[in-house]
Amino acid sequence: MGKVLLAGVGATPIGEHWEKSLRDLMVDASLNALRDAGVEKKNVDAIFVGNMSSGYLQGQEHLGSLLATWLGIPGVAAHKVEAACASGGAAVHDAFMAVKSGLYDCVLAVGVEKMTDASTDQLTSALIMADDQEYTAFAGFSFVALNALVYRAYMDKYGAKQEDIALFAVHDHEHAVHNPLAQYRRAVTLDAVLSSPLVADPLHLLECAPTGDGAAALLLCSEEKAKELGLKPEVEVAASALATDVLSLHDRDDLTTLNATLRAAERAYKIARVEPKNVDVAEVHDAFTVLGVIHLEDLGFAKKGEGWKLVKEGEIEAGGKIPVNMMGGLKARGHPVGATGVYEVYDAALQLLGRAGKNQVEGAEVALAQNVGGVGGTVAVTILRRVR
Amino acid sequence: MGKVLLAGVGATPIGEHWEKSLRDLMVDASLNALRDAGVEKKNVDAIFVGNMSSGYLQGQEHLGSLLATWLGIPGVAAHKVEAACASGGAAVHDAFMAVKSGLYDCVLAVGVEKMTDASTDQLTSALIMADDQEYTAFAGFSFVALNALVYRAYMDKYGAKQEDIALFAVHDHEHAVHNPLAQYRRAVTLDAVLSSPLVADPLHLLECAPTGDGAAALLLCSEEKAKELGLKPEVEVAASALATDVLSLHDRDDLTTLNATLRAAERAYKIARVEPKNVDVAEVHDAFTVLGVIHLEDLGFAKKGEGWKLVKEGEIEAGGKIPVNMMGGLKARGHPVGATGVYEVYDAALQLLGRAGKNQVEGAEVALAQNVGGVGGTVAVTILRRVR
Repeated sequence: MGKVLLAGVGATPIGEHWEKSLRDLMVDASLNALRDAGVEKKNVDAIFVGNMSSGYLQGQEHLGSLLATWLGIPGVAAHKVEAACASGGAAVHDAFMAVKSGLYDCVLAVGVEKMTDASTDQLTSALIMADDQEYTAFAGFSFVALNALVYRAYMDKYGAKQEDIALFAVHDHEHAVHNPLAQYRRAVTLDAVLSSPLVADPLHLLECAPTGDGAAALLLCSEEKAKELGLKPEVEVAASALATDVLSLHDRDDLTTLNATLRAAERAYKIARVEPKNVDVAEVHDAFTVLGVIHLEDLGFAKKGEGWKLVKEGEIEAGGKIPVNMMGGLKARGHPVGATGVYEVYDAALQLLGRAGKNQVEGAEVALAQNVGGVGGTVAVTILRRVR
Repeated sequence: MGKVLLAGVGATPIGEHWEKSLRDLMVDASLNALRDAGVEKKNVDAIFVGNMSSGYLQGQEHLGSLLATWLGIPGVAAHKVEAACASGGAAVHDAFMAVKSGLYDCVLAVGVEKMTDASTDQLTSALIMADDQEYTAFAGFSFVALNALVYRAYMDKYGAKQEDIALFAVHDHEHAVHNPLAQYRRAVTLDAVLSSPLVADPLHLLECAPTGDGAAALLLCSEEKAKELGLKPEVEVAASALATDVLSLHDRDDLTTLNATLRAAERAYKIARVEPKNVDVAEVHDAFTVLGVIHLEDLGFAKKGEGWKLVKEGEIEAGGKIPVNMMGGLKARGHPVGATGVYEVYDAALQLLGRAGKNQVEGAEVALAQNVGGVGGTVAVTILRRVR
């Protein structure tokens, strides 16, 4: 089986897009990816759209046909993929599978979410659908509250301090300053983070990823198709893996590790034939500061219970042990939930393409993107590599 | 690339399952498929769940992880697939792709929908999400109204009479009598159909598929895995194809043919290397009587404008030119929207397995199932064949 090549990437800025509809966002991102690849849309033969809440928030399902229609390529195979906040990563996985299967040669993986039109109540309802409605939501938990439990459990178990964990948000904001697509292009101090309002104790507002509107797209091609089109993509999708865990925290033995990350990472490393030490730059799903820290451990970049040390000691910066979320991460680039997994791969790809500007990690050859659905009910891991 | 084998099938009865939740239904169907295959659940490595409206109707997304959890196999790759009423067929397509890709060996394709807890208003809102919310729904169309337009256009263009088209419902009900899983196990007369209340002129109530609760599941295996497990499946998934068309009727040149059916069927016939004349029995997506007739034409079983003649002349019965919807079709077996595409493949498989009881088409070797999303925005076509 030949390589799955990343022929082009595209995205919209993340923010409050009052002037753009859900369809506008996904069409914009897709056209950007096609333009980036230099591929005419007529070559696309399948589209997978990652999205979580378009039915509930926009009253719009059937996004596959909708996007194919508005891209002007009705006829292609297309459907929506949903795995809560891992919908984007799951769409990337479908696109990877599609090319690997030999059934498709030129596939768009798109992620889109439009959240800022909704009220806070609507968003709270939409997001808790990522967990078990009949057990967790009926018991009164919000999605933030579940992550606050994880935060407490982590600090208790490993003796980590909030001021160390909260540094993850400071790191993200610092880098978002130089990302033209980021939702919050401003630095924040640790003091600002820790004095921001409590959302769910111990989570402060500035430790939580914001809601936003945005779409991102990737164009994946088979080697044969790339050759036929005269493309020479510099990056391949070396692996895409998807794994689940029990949906809810109340069924887990340990709140401080995500089994789905362990499983998806193990598979992805195996498929790509790399180890954590080979990864030059990573995008991790820091929906909440503590999750960013936990992911560093689960992905094999730090020992269990010591992820926060990497952050504190500057090891997640360029030149450090494992540069992470160099474009601002969920916290500052933004987190339009169903789109996030695709933005992460987009940001990882920029590093390998040498297009990350002031956030560039020099000489990056292997990049990893990790996308989490719910509180780890699903995790998608994508590994990109420069084509040798 | 080896064959994709259908190792087992399972389903729940369709009806008003007040006593069962969405999760119960999909777990029941999945366990039935595993039991049917004689495969232990630990062998499953991926699950694709077709569902349209769980977010809007149950406040529950993230069905992939939910099902993996409640099946007791957290860890597997899993996500939800949505393509309106073609969600089930799209999930089958993902499962087919997954095995073809070589990434997975033993995959569950599951379809589930629970509709009867909702009010008529909620269902009307949920179903129109299959079309373009900002154009079609905002203009006041219900999903039934769109299909009524197709009905008028078909009768006008081809001079077909409603009493001939409505016979499709009579046919479906006749066969549902002998289907233990069917929602309406009773025959209806043509007179009863035509004197039932008008829902959207000219569509009478008994020309429209009902709403219902249900789940169906298929277990797909690679040849290698089947061998490893000592299985000898009698049926293979010879092809699965997915195609789109412009989402809405207002963008189409012709309301009386579904381009997505033409495209998906062409691809599926090509992959399976069969022609319409080789198909021994078919399941078509008769959400409304007129659609059943149109599908007969678009799938190549009748000339354009003459599908109704097949129905009138008894050619869709056992022994006829192309036996269709032998287990009751959407009209009488039932139409839990996101599950329907999987039920269709289930019903087609029963024929090849010789398990269709009084509805059996003797000696059937090749079966086709067609699943439509929206008014043809997406169509999935699956072709099954007895393993030679």
